Amino acid sequence: MSDTLTKQQLADIKLLLQKKYREEQQRFIIEGWKAVREAVDAHAEIDAVLVRDDEQEHEALSKVRRSVKRVFVVSSKQMESLSDAVTAQGVIAVLPFFPSMGTEMAFLKKKDALIVAVDGVADPGNLGTIIRTCDWFGVDAVVLSKGTVELYNPKVVRSTMGSLFHLPIVASTDLPEFLHRCQAQRFTLWSTELNGSEDLRNVSFTGKNVIIIGSESHGVSKEVSASAQHSLLIPRFGKAESLNAALACGIILAKVRS
Amino acid sequence: MSDTLTKQQLADIKLLLQKKYREEQQRFIIEGWKAVREAVDAHAEIDAVLVRDDEQEHEALSKVRRSVKRVFVVSSKQMESLSDAVTAQGVIAVLPFFPSMGTEMAFLKKKDALIVAVDGVADPGNLGTIIRTCDWFGVDAVVLSKGTVELYNPKVVRSTMGSLFHLPIVASTDLPEFLHRCQAQRFTLWSTELNGSEDLRNVSFTGKNVIIIGSESHGVSKEVSASAQHSLLIPRFGKAESLNAALACGIILAKVRS
Repeated sequence: MSDTLTKQQLADIKLLLQKKYREEQQRFIIEGWKAVREAVDAHAEIDAVLVRDDEQEHEALSKVRRSVKRVFVVSSKQMESLSDAVTAQGVIAVLPFFPSMGTEMAFLKKKDALIVAVDGVADPGNLGTIIRTCDWFGVDAVVLSKGTVELYNPKVVRSTMGSLFHLPIVASTDLPEFLHRCQAQRFTLWSTELNGSEDLRNVSFTGKNVIIIGSESHGVSKEVSASAQHSLLIPRFGKAESLNAALACGIILAKVRS
Repeated sequence: MSDTLTKQQLADIKLLLQKKYREEQQRFIIEGWKAVREAVDAHAEIDAVLVRDDEQEHEALSKVRRSVKRVFVVSSKQMESLSDAVTAQGVIAVLPFFPSMGTEMAFLKKKDALIVAVDGVADPGNLGTIIRTCDWFGVDAVVLSKGTVELYNPKVVRSTMGSLFHLPIVASTDLPEFLHRCQAQRFTLWSTELNGSEDLRNVSFTGKNVIIIGSESHGVSKEVSASAQHSLLIPRFGKAESLNAALACGIILAKVRS
């Protein structure tokens, strides 16, 4: 059994393709069975699931129905109007935004906590890959500065490849304030810079650590950089002007876990 | 002084937006002053440079004129018709394809040579980032299998961010044959796999090495994997299903250089 979607509900969901209305409604869209399944498995809060009428036999649907109250069947025309992707998927889900700073953030109290703070990364694919990489290396939380590309941008969501639901992600954070809280909780703050002073190869990470990843074009902002005790350098052996931000993140996390 | 571009020449260059005609003409396009300058600085062979008429005062143009015989001034309408990017750049250059296998490949004889072999990476942005990362870590050459996305795809070229001209890149290679040549030259072959048997953290790289990076969806192909003496594993600490191919490449190269 499925509810029927009213015209108004459909119109409201369609608005979620635009950042402005995502912020107004405090909700966002995920697309495809893989992402929906990840959300269900992670017990993420889900407002509604929309299934295209030719996908009602999908093997994941019964599981989705057990976890989500509001499942709607829609036509392929309706589904297309709701998709950001070139080829619309057979299923989408609407989710409320994740909790933001100010809420408890239990990860701050974890022994040997490892946090990645993202300061101004602008490219959606880069941010998605950073989150996916943080997931791979078992990072305890990812915290995004206000200047970072919107977490709920469909391209970000897609490029996390499901990792969005594997670890806490705190969006639109006042990063200097957050880093102060980390310092009060005895975290060591590591900024990563093209002209950093400490060679990553000679560093060892113990206790609680925050790794700060800067934007592709401007690096870590001055205010944030000033609050970090250490600035990391990934030594260069060739002629490339810079390393991709997600790459720098992954190389540092591999070292933390070594 | 600039030559005038004939209609036929313009039409031929426009065809280079399509892979089929790039292969027919064995030439490709690079866009933007940064890329053109990198090509000139690297003494790359350049067939022609096309400058938009409002860019004739650009400070890099005199240097370009000293290195390139055929410089054409074109209208902004002509330039737009030649661009793959959303916003057309003020300059493009047409270059012949790089030398392919069969040619000398002096890097095979270099002491402690480090080669990255790419086996089937499909995403243009991933390949570009791999090349840029190889450049950062001073890799001696990048070799691409026949199944890898085309090196001269404008998105690949763009995402290398100029690194295309900093190290030898051999495209469309018969990878099993190339790896045989490497073995004859006493290289150690390392395949990277999600279920690899050797933990990267415990490995040390000495002598001449080839790092083999597989495709995003299928990993390293069976034939190639069988020829490698070692299969590397980047240990996972969280729940992500996989690591991005460029990330895996960067993490391994950082370890090689540690």
